[in-house]
Amino acid sequence: MSNSTIQKKNAFYAQSGGVTAVINATACGLIEAAREHAGKIGNVYAGRNGILGALQEELIDTNKESDEAIASLLFTPAGAFGSCRYKLKNFEDSKAEYERLIKVFKAHNIGYFFYNGGGDSADTCLKVSQISKQMGYPIQAIHIPKTVDNDLPFTDNCPGFGSVAKYIAVSTKEASLDIASMCETSTKVFILEVMGRHAGWIAAASALAAEKAGDPPHIILFPEVPFSGQSFLDKVEKTVLKEGYCVVVASEGTKYLDGRFISGSTNKDAFGHHQLGGLAPTLANMIKSSLGYKYHWALADYLQRSARHVASATDVAQAYAVGRTAVEYALAGKNSVMVTIERKEDSVYSWSLGEADLTDIANQEKKMPKNYITADGYGVTQEGIDYLSPLIQGEDYPPYKNGVPVYKKLANIPVKKKIKESYKL
Amino acid sequence: MSNSTIQKKNAFYAQSGGVTAVINATACGLIEAAREHAGKIGNVYAGRNGILGALQEELIDTNKESDEAIASLLFTPAGAFGSCRYKLKNFEDSKAEYERLIKVFKAHNIGYFFYNGGGDSADTCLKVSQISKQMGYPIQAIHIPKTVDNDLPFTDNCPGFGSVAKYIAVSTKEASLDIASMCETSTKVFILEVMGRHAGWIAAASALAAEKAGDPPHIILFPEVPFSGQSFLDKVEKTVLKEGYCVVVASEGTKYLDGRFISGSTNKDAFGHHQLGGLAPTLANMIKSSLGYKYHWALADYLQRSARHVASATDVAQAYAVGRTAVEYALAGKNSVMVTIERKEDSVYSWSLGEADLTDIANQEKKMPKNYITADGYGVTQEGIDYLSPLIQGEDYPPYKNGVPVYKKLANIPVKKKIKESYKL
Repeated sequence: MSNSTIQKKNAFYAQSGGVTAVINATACGLIEAAREHAGKIGNVYAGRNGILGALQEELIDTNKESDEAIASLLFTPAGAFGSCRYKLKNFEDSKAEYERLIKVFKAHNIGYFFYNGGGDSADTCLKVSQISKQMGYPIQAIHIPKTVDNDLPFTDNCPGFGSVAKYIAVSTKEASLDIASMCETSTKVFILEVMGRHAGWIAAASALAAEKAGDPPHIILFPEVPFSGQSFLDKVEKTVLKEGYCVVVASEGTKYLDGRFISGSTNKDAFGHHQLGGLAPTLANMIKSSLGYKYHWALADYLQRSARHVASATDVAQAYAVGRTAVEYALAGKNSVMVTIERKEDSVYSWSLGEADLTDIANQEKKMPKNYITADGYGVTQEGIDYLSPLIQGEDYPPYKNGVPVYKKLANIPVKKKIKESYKL
Repeated sequence: MSNSTIQKKNAFYAQSGGVTAVINATACGLIEAAREHAGKIGNVYAGRNGILGALQEELIDTNKESDEAIASLLFTPAGAFGSCRYKLKNFEDSKAEYERLIKVFKAHNIGYFFYNGGGDSADTCLKVSQISKQMGYPIQAIHIPKTVDNDLPFTDNCPGFGSVAKYIAVSTKEASLDIASMCETSTKVFILEVMGRHAGWIAAASALAAEKAGDPPHIILFPEVPFSGQSFLDKVEKTVLKEGYCVVVASEGTKYLDGRFISGSTNKDAFGHHQLGGLAPTLANMIKSSLGYKYHWALADYLQRSARHVASATDVAQAYAVGRTAVEYALAGKNSVMVTIERKEDSVYSWSLGEADLTDIANQEKKMPKNYITADGYGVTQEGIDYLSPLIQGEDYPPYKNGVPVYKKLANIPVKKKIKESYKL
């Protein structure tokens, strides 16, 4: 092994939390940039199932993939290396966990930690940077934003959001035409339940389906606006009387003033978040029993965040760019930062990349600002539309074969383990 | 008015029952063909809200629409003139209804009745032909097939089905990648509930998502196969143990051996059909309580049948062709027939148009043949794949503006009423 090879540090890349239609585009940008800088950066090792791959020393050697295979990540949804819902505990509570991480990174000569996720992973990223330094093996940790929830601060938007926003806008427009066609003798109310625990960005995107006032969706429910059953039913009734039908798009996290979810299970995930669902049928039953209208409802669930077939070209471009830029930041010596997207204040949307300090970010949630929600609490203002609309611009279709998209699976060849002891979670 | 104008009969066109992503493509083909034969056929009047438009003399003058507006129907989903769920009663029980229909047709010099729908509307079409003749004002009635359920006999497939099939195949493929990425620490079972009361064609189309044995979907539930809870749970468990996760696609009409739906409301629509729903959460709870797996489920509902953004090019072409051909059949003097699609038995799929006598069709439902379903009842055989695959071939994207499809609304200008008495349904 030459001296120069010893000097070059390898990189660790992991996908965290719920996957998106474009998180692999970020992986694509990151790996392609690393290959272009092969003189300065070693192999990119991906964590199998996110951070678990680091803890369990299950690393994937992305160097074993052809350039063509890596390029295919640009149009393949979900997590190519696996993701996980696993939150590292505080250093004080779980020293062993961090020691293990650093041990694995040291064994594989990893000097760059790229963590691709939402608020929880920004927090982990910060800790890895701090603790690795404390432990005498400093690692440059760069956070790369990803979340369909669009709730990270300091960035114009989060890669993954633009595509789910486009899916919801397109689906709302299409389903609304369906109901409008049939409302004379059949369904009068259609409810689409969408993701969004604490922030209503995804539901807000449905407003992009409307071309003019009065167009569906007629009612949008945001977690940011306390729900009132009577006000909601009044609005449904008024809309049906005026338009003949009513289209409702509801955030899963819609709740009453006292914080109770309209309908939610008590299951919690590994991050302690409630697993929601059941809102749409609850609203539908409210409407049926109070107003007697025939209803239909849909729950898009995973379909919305994996819908690469209708991805936003803007979102794909941004997801790819944040991956590339993470590598450039690392090589520029940056540490403990998140790559951000910056909107230029022009009449035509354009963007560039920036950075934010991770100490400012951890566990903040960016909710819908008040001036994006109409006074009655059921719609999106022009300011909101002006913010959202650029994010869904452009179509970026995957290649098709036999009528379905060609989504590539990587070989995901493991890196030989170097540590004898296995690690129990 | 010249003699030739008096000779020329006008046409009535109506959309019936649940709309589809491509029923307007049929309207486009029909109106364009009629315009090309303007020397032989008069105006095309569309029924506002389907057959109700005829009963209530609410006719739409399609002649008032530009060629460009009619051309836009090719890529606009749902029913451009409105549809309805309204079944004409027997002639014996409701003579007044048929007398009213013929009166309206006579008043507007209508000699051609084009009815675009499923099995129920084929039945209506037959009756209009028979009764108009009995009443001394014979009308040529041509049925044009449309149904996402793909359950009409004598035709290779039903326009509307290919596009919902493509939507389900694409969505299953995408959501499956999502679950596969996360199953190590999160969701193990994903259930997609799809349309299909009595026939499992739509659920079967999810099998087109698989590239090789073992690929998702792992379990498909068909109305044709009696449901056994124990067998289902065994298969879910085996799949999770082997693949790490399990993807289930369930027809809404899946039922136990004794005919009980797994979960269904008791609401009925105007045709006396049960309004189903609630199957997916019922299956999910079964799995959670017996096997303890974390689940997610989606209900595509209207999203699946309005998804013009991911329509099958084959389906669009066939939908357009059956509309054109209906006009050609009418001008050739045909009566009381349905336009059919005929598959040529070549190694490469090709098709032509044929016809079937309406007396043979009425109220028959074409279910999945036994040789299309695997021996265990949970999958689709190669014969089934060979039948389904050609129907989703080709992409036919709508134009987009501002990130969403441009779906056109017609002016829908009413034809002046000629009958004094209004009609109460």
